[in-house]
Amino acid sequence: MSDALPFDTALLDKLAEAVVRTGLNVSEGQNVFLTGSAEALPLIRRVAREAYKAGAGIVVPVLSDEDLTRARMELARDEALDAAPAWLYQGVAQAFEDNWARCHIAADNPMALADQDPARVARAARANSKAYKPAMAKIANFEINWSIAAYPGRAWAEQVFPDLDADAAQAALAQAIFKASRVDVEDPVAAWAEHNVELARRRDWLNAQRFDALHFRSEGTDLTVGLADGHLWAGGAAEAKNGIVCNPNMPTEEVFTTPHKMRVSGRARASKPLAYQGTLIDGIEVVFEDGRITEARASRGEQAFLNLLDTDEGARRLGEVALVPHASPISQSGVLFYNTLFDENAACHIALGNCYTECLEDGGALTGDALAARGGNESLVHVDWMIGAKDTEIDGIAADGTRVPVFRGGNWAD
Amino acid sequence: MSDALPFDTALLDKLAEAVVRTGLNVSEGQNVFLTGSAEALPLIRRVAREAYKAGAGIVVPVLSDEDLTRARMELARDEALDAAPAWLYQGVAQAFEDNWARCHIAADNPMALADQDPARVARAARANSKAYKPAMAKIANFEINWSIAAYPGRAWAEQVFPDLDADAAQAALAQAIFKASRVDVEDPVAAWAEHNVELARRRDWLNAQRFDALHFRSEGTDLTVGLADGHLWAGGAAEAKNGIVCNPNMPTEEVFTTPHKMRVSGRARASKPLAYQGTLIDGIEVVFEDGRITEARASRGEQAFLNLLDTDEGARRLGEVALVPHASPISQSGVLFYNTLFDENAACHIALGNCYTECLEDGGALTGDALAARGGNESLVHVDWMIGAKDTEIDGIAADGTRVPVFRGGNWAD
Ligand SMILES: [Zn+2]
Ligand SMILES: [Zn+2]
Ligand SMILES: [Zn+2]
Ligand SMILES: [Zn+2]
Repeated sequence: MSDALPFDTALLDKLAEAVVRTGLNVSEGQNVFLTGSAEALPLIRRVAREAYKAGAGIVVPVLSDEDLTRARMELARDEALDAAPAWLYQGVAQAFEDNWARCHIAADNPMALADQDPARVARAARANSKAYKPAMAKIANFEINWSIAAYPGRAWAEQVFPDLDADAAQAALAQAIFKASRVDVEDPVAAWAEHNVELARRRDWLNAQRFDALHFRSEGTDLTVGLADGHLWAGGAAEAKNGIVCNPNMPTEEVFTTPHKMRVSGRARASKPLAYQGTLIDGIEVVFEDGRITEARASRGEQAFLNLLDTDEGARRLGEVALVPHASPISQSGVLFYNTLFDENAACHIALGNCYTECLEDGGALTGDALAARGGNESLVHVDWMIGAKDTEIDGIAADGTRVPVFRGGNWAD
Repeated sequence: MSDALPFDTALLDKLAEAVVRTGLNVSEGQNVFLTGSAEALPLIRRVAREAYKAGAGIVVPVLSDEDLTRARMELARDEALDAAPAWLYQGVAQAFEDNWARCHIAADNPMALADQDPARVARAARANSKAYKPAMAKIANFEINWSIAAYPGRAWAEQVFPDLDADAAQAALAQAIFKASRVDVEDPVAAWAEHNVELARRRDWLNAQRFDALHFRSEGTDLTVGLADGHLWAGGAAEAKNGIVCNPNMPTEEVFTTPHKMRVSGRARASKPLAYQGTLIDGIEVVFEDGRITEARASRGEQAFLNLLDTDEGARRLGEVALVPHASPISQSGVLFYNTLFDENAACHIALGNCYTECLEDGGALTGDALAARGGNESLVHVDWMIGAKDTEIDGIAADGTRVPVFRGGNWAD
């Protein structure tokens, strides 16, 4: 394998090892479903080889290509935007039932469709989400071990570093990814073990508190987020229902849980722009009443944001609340990645849409009314956006109204 | 889209147009399942765009990579070689049931696994064929319109032109592909229409003859191939069961039919080497008795050939007999492509293994005993090898024993 890449490929080796050993933690004989853009082959090939070395069964790649997605948006007839490869997604759901592990390498420019008709983009995304739902549910319910990591695609790099030439931009994005993914150290697997211990400590403390709600305050935000009945905090390494402990996201800096879909109130202002389906949405301000967004505006990309809210009833309610200190390395890097995998780890955030049932006691089997009764939200979408800033203060509110400091001045209070 | 390729990409545009309009003949609103190696993206992207322009629904790519296949052969544990992504192939079968068109772009080096353990390669191929069978059956039964074409991958090019440097080899393979695929002309779609008329004329003549058998003679070959009861000759454009007329292979020079699995006798010598699962098999000589190969040798790669024959009972019997004149452009080019898509169009050939039920009257629904009663062969494999040469003489033998000249001196007798 030879790559002429403008960055140190030894770090790709390290990232591949961390993805397989820590991210996926593939078990002896387990098959792996491996996806990503063809452009990410330098990492995808290394991940496959590491997986085989770790004793994987077969590694089955299904590679995509940004230009093919673009061709569809440019050229497909309107009616064709409602189509989706249900047969492929049903197959993927079957793979998860057969205990395949899932690995995705993100490399595409999240803004690749920025110049396309947002209505067409949204229409295609909606059809795709619908068809993907059976497979997505198994990921959301954490039925198998899975992991998403990133490769510095060139178009993405030029989006993130518009002032650099293509090679320099790719090198800069590579460095940012390696640093955020904690592989720019001697022993990434050991570094991840340490990081997971720290996230587990925060998670266990929050679980012990059993807060009824969190109260967020910062400039433009005064939001009370009720937590779901029997909510569980998660963060870092976690055990999938197949018994394998994995790290679903590389990087990850968050501890997160399931809010109560009916008990969110107040106003929130986004602290960072949100890249959604190729549109940059900035200056988001919303008002929640009884869990539902009743007012929404944005200074840029407002229509795309309103379209998102109109996806379905659940898109106006929360499915996740997550705590990330302002001191986190991704926050300190100051880089806007235009990619949730990174940007959600730069600040406290909330997610509109579907909740993770793993963040509910005995949540795995819950759907429909039973899930709703606990406060769990359902939607075709799950979109994180940042509300944390350097002045964020968070109180935990116990059932009896007692307040406990959780964040002060943007960071953990303790 | 920018490509820095050592050949004229205007010919890729023409090839893409021919693949979509003539090869696939995608119908209004029809979805397309598009596969190939990531390396073939310059052609795959053009095919997708042409398909959309032709009114396709969605084009869903599933890209592969030669190095990932190689990694498996090098690193997977032995037991893992028996695994296959059945969920993916079941999905593909479902796509065909839903009337998706199928397009594949071949670009990999057929000899890529030449240095791997042949037993491991065969084991993995067998598991894959088994899992792929439900989808393959729908292709073999011609239930949907499909087409395979080729892109000049670099490793493949270096295999075909070992004396040239990589760029020159790729340019030479590109030229050979464009010429063989009849796109190096002003109007490839018109050229294909003309070519299809010529193939149809040969096909119709053979169908009118209703031969009972063909008798092949050339140096080392004296072989009588009985034809299946109610056999039909095919060649060039043909109508799939979904009603769409397509060209499954680009290039194609053959007219072919289904032999009778019990009525083949005599001896045959291969006139060209056969590339099978990464092994070059040369100097094949076999003896048929009552349709079954009872003696087999090869001067090179004999073990791989014997392994092929041992795949299953059907691998020792014929599933196809095909007529290609020695004057065909691919034959005249003198290039050994190591790829059946091309090499089978250089000479008359026979195929071991599974037959095409489209080459039997009312053959579509036939399986098992009913198919066998007509002489149709079943197997996990279908492997073509060349027996035609410049001295090939073929007689058609009617049911009453009358002989009609079909080939003389390597070419059509008329
Ligand atoms: Zn989150
Ligand atoms: Zn989230
Ligand atoms: Zn053939
Ligand atoms: Zn054949």
